[in-house]
Amino acid sequence: MKFGVRIMPRSVLLDTQGRTVEKVLRDHSYELDSLRVGKYVEIELNEKEAGRAEEKIKAMTEFVLYNPLIETFVIERREG
Amino acid sequence: MKFGVRIMPRSVLLDTQGRTVEKVLRDHSYELDSLRVGKYVEIELNEKEAGRAEEKIKAMTEFVLYNPLIETFVIERREG
Repeated sequence: MKFGVRIMPRSVLLDTQGRTVEKVLRDHSYELDSLRVGKYVEIELNEKEAGRAEEKIKAMTEFVLYNPLIETFVIERREG
Repeated sequence: MKFGVRIMPRSVLLDTQGRTVEKVLRDHSYELDSLRVGKYVEIELNEKEAGRAEEKIKAMTEFVLYNPLIETFVIERREG
């Protein structure tokens, strides 16, 4: 069972990468309203029960993947 | 119009972050088949026509967001 974990900075203030990229794009005449840069983690598990699999993904994410002080995360089920 | 760009390493060999995180999890008895770490970029545009908006997102991604030698990307339309 395959999952994706999308981890995004809590606010624009914390998103230094995003602000840098946004400025570069604007300086090159690209028009955009906002841009944020986060992480995406794809995890595959050998677990058939969706609820239990999601619990495991959540535990891994909280253990090592994200920093609760500066980030939020969303888990999404993926095909394949 | 809001889009997400998911940028992932082309292969496990190139995914040093992913291999490190996977090892840490395994060393702590988490069971998983595979793990990859990529980037996620959220972009909002003031553009009502979906096709044109996606073209712009693609141009930005190719200009500055991803490295074609080591990464692939997928653009997805997002709510809100």
